[in-house]
Amino acid sequence: MKTIIIGGSTTGMGVAAKLKRLDEKHEIIVIQDKEYVSLGACGIPYYVGRNFDNPETLIARKVENFEETGIRVLTKKSAHKIDFKNKVINFEDENISYDNLVIAVGAKPITPPIKNIDANNIFTVNSKEDAIVIINAITDQSKVLVIGSGLIGLEMVENIKHATKANIAIIEKADRVLKNLFDEEFSKLVEEEIKNKNIDLYKENEIVEFIKDANNNVCGAKTIKSEIINCDIVILSIGVLPNTKFLKNTELELENNGAIKINEYCETNIPNVYAGGDCCSSLSYLYKNNRTFYLATVANKQAKIIANNINKTKTSKFVGALGTTIIRFFDLELARSGENKMFIETNKIETKEILIKDKDHTNYVKDQTDLWLKIIMDIETKEIINVQMIGKNKSVLRIYGLVGIIWARTKVDEALEQIDLPYSPPFSRTTDIIHIALSKLI
Amino acid sequence: MKTIIIGGSTTGMGVAAKLKRLDEKHEIIVIQDKEYVSLGACGIPYYVGRNFDNPETLIARKVENFEETGIRVLTKKSAHKIDFKNKVINFEDENISYDNLVIAVGAKPITPPIKNIDANNIFTVNSKEDAIVIINAITDQSKVLVIGSGLIGLEMVENIKHATKANIAIIEKADRVLKNLFDEEFSKLVEEEIKNKNIDLYKENEIVEFIKDANNNVCGAKTIKSEIINCDIVILSIGVLPNTKFLKNTELELENNGAIKINEYCETNIPNVYAGGDCCSSLSYLYKNNRTFYLATVANKQAKIIANNINKTKTSKFVGALGTTIIRFFDLELARSGENKMFIETNKIETKEILIKDKDHTNYVKDQTDLWLKIIMDIETKEIINVQMIGKNKSVLRIYGLVGIIWARTKVDEALEQIDLPYSPPFSRTTDIIHIALSKLI
Repeated sequence: MKTIIIGGSTTGMGVAAKLKRLDEKHEIIVIQDKEYVSLGACGIPYYVGRNFDNPETLIARKVENFEETGIRVLTKKSAHKIDFKNKVINFEDENISYDNLVIAVGAKPITPPIKNIDANNIFTVNSKEDAIVIINAITDQSKVLVIGSGLIGLEMVENIKHATKANIAIIEKADRVLKNLFDEEFSKLVEEEIKNKNIDLYKENEIVEFIKDANNNVCGAKTIKSEIINCDIVILSIGVLPNTKFLKNTELELENNGAIKINEYCETNIPNVYAGGDCCSSLSYLYKNNRTFYLATVANKQAKIIANNINKTKTSKFVGALGTTIIRFFDLELARSGENKMFIETNKIETKEILIKDKDHTNYVKDQTDLWLKIIMDIETKEIINVQMIGKNKSVLRIYGLVGIIWARTKVDEALEQIDLPYSPPFSRTTDIIHIALSKLI
Repeated sequence: MKTIIIGGSTTGMGVAAKLKRLDEKHEIIVIQDKEYVSLGACGIPYYVGRNFDNPETLIARKVENFEETGIRVLTKKSAHKIDFKNKVINFEDENISYDNLVIAVGAKPITPPIKNIDANNIFTVNSKEDAIVIINAITDQSKVLVIGSGLIGLEMVENIKHATKANIAIIEKADRVLKNLFDEEFSKLVEEEIKNKNIDLYKENEIVEFIKDANNNVCGAKTIKSEIINCDIVILSIGVLPNTKFLKNTELELENNGAIKINEYCETNIPNVYAGGDCCSSLSYLYKNNRTFYLATVANKQAKIIANNINKTKTSKFVGALGTTIIRFFDLELARSGENKMFIETNKIETKEILIKDKDHTNYVKDQTDLWLKIIMDIETKEIINVQMIGKNKSVLRIYGLVGIIWARTKVDEALEQIDLPYSPPFSRTTDIIHIALSKLI
């Protein structure tokens, strides 16, 4: 049995490693466009923030280590064309046949067609190379413009501020930061933190043109409101899209955003062709609709499922994701899970929501901090469908509890209100914020 | 309607406050043996550790504040005798009749019949007075002997060490610390921490006699092995028992340990007599047996249930407790929930257990620490019945997630393994320790 995997990141290398463990005779070839595999892309902001010095730390496992287990890794190769009918991949110089194909090409940062976007020092946050050029480019004198205030944008801001004295500005198209993930009250707290850190924030604003100097270096950006923002480094973090351009106009079914359609077994519409991770649209746990999650946790789980299903010793199903997310932003920590407001409104789900501001632990143990929790409940099912938290000192790890409740579809009632959460003075209060919120939802 | 509440701590004052909110015309009398109510006894170790200076901070709400809402509080009074038949409480000087009676007298530290236990400077950890005499007694020169290494004992050790340079020794009857709450691997880590902090630990050992000087001050303790431990302060923390001596030989049904038997409505065997909190035996959530939990969280919940059931606008049931506990011990943090090994063995429950040692978050963000997780699963039901964690920097707040899973009785299977827990580099790894443990239990 021979399996070809296109893409050497979380899903691809996850499938390769697991499949080899399940059946060491299985012939596995990974086709990867870079010279390394297993990039922990989530680490890039932390490298830029000088949490560690060696960019190789971003590589979870080296090509050699995979090859030692008998996995063949073809680096710096792109699969130009796939002949799905004859189960053959065409390269420039050779054709390779397969029994099973796994497409795990991930997502790609969106680079909007802004004038002069090809100027020097305009970066995306996607590869080891990006990480290295960014860290080398930013100095204490830099004027950094971060475009987009999603997770990656904010992580970059925090880390650049942590490592340098660079001046930072953020520009965001929407009327608030983190709009797709959090409700207004939470965005507001993050925006206050942005202000506290002396970072400029331009909202409901967009860049229409980059200004460059004679050396082709970016030196400013013109907004839709005709302001000029001075900058000599630009971080483009407005989002990603499935890296599936090479699959357009093939037999493989794609969503409108380019995501590969898969079923719960991570099978595509073509027999023996599997896909997983950021290049796919995947099942949402609660309402069983499909969407692209762009989360390493989803990629990771789908890798295991694909390997099991190719190996066939047992058949595995992806049961869905909640889009659970956690992020540190300076002293603030945010966590969320479940369907967002846009989904709830579009699908006209009748909800009851509660926002609680409390404290993380007792007043008499030091470092007591504010803790905010929003819970949104589906009135019909009495199930929690969205939670959002903001706090400090890891207090938002309570999200684990809420995810446990959501995952089990536990109904909000007097029994759930009595859930036996831990209490001792340095960690919580006898009536935890979760209890307070639940009692108000009944 | 007139309700008398005996006991002015968590359950008693909880019932009083809630009942008054539900029906402001309800006549409520609280009988309390001390001059204050609403003691947050969990705060005592933290007061001794000088986390705060004013012992009044231990009082969550003052007598006056309750009286302002129309609740009558009789302080420094003990209910000598209860005439359950005629619904009358006899004091020294008066009789008060009631429609409903709530017994919420809590628990009392065990003071074993050791010779010279009445010497000066031998303290229990139970009241505001205890807190004040302990903090006044301990100096940098003190030699403190803590008897018992349960939660209170260890919290006292940590706090005394935090506030003073006192020399500390712990003596424990069992062969390891925290035996009723944690398995051996966890006790061992705590014992290492005890050693690291230069605290002497005597295990499988007991005090048979206290030695006192001419001024009746304790100056040493003789062990069962005939060693003499020099000490001038003794903290007795070997456990508590329901404070129900005055109810012995009455019609009220008690357990062997003196705990008042209650049903899920917190009703005793006598009509219109309710009880809750540390003086009762309560339902255990998982296997529906009864036991005394001695947890503020249980007391808190039962207070609400009692108030609802007296008020009758809605009938509330206590669905049970898991005995969830969390404790900080110097740099270590421990959390646990569910049935302990003794229960599992006594009831011959067939289990599968897994112990994982992993890290709390990614290697490239600073302060990565060790994290241990044990999960015990009932093989028949596939439900998790015990979890234990030890870690640092609040990483054990993951216990919230495991409690959510236990509470919902979610079966351990491939679907649960995919639970969508949060990931980002400062908080976790893409495959969280909970995922690792679950994958090995399937």
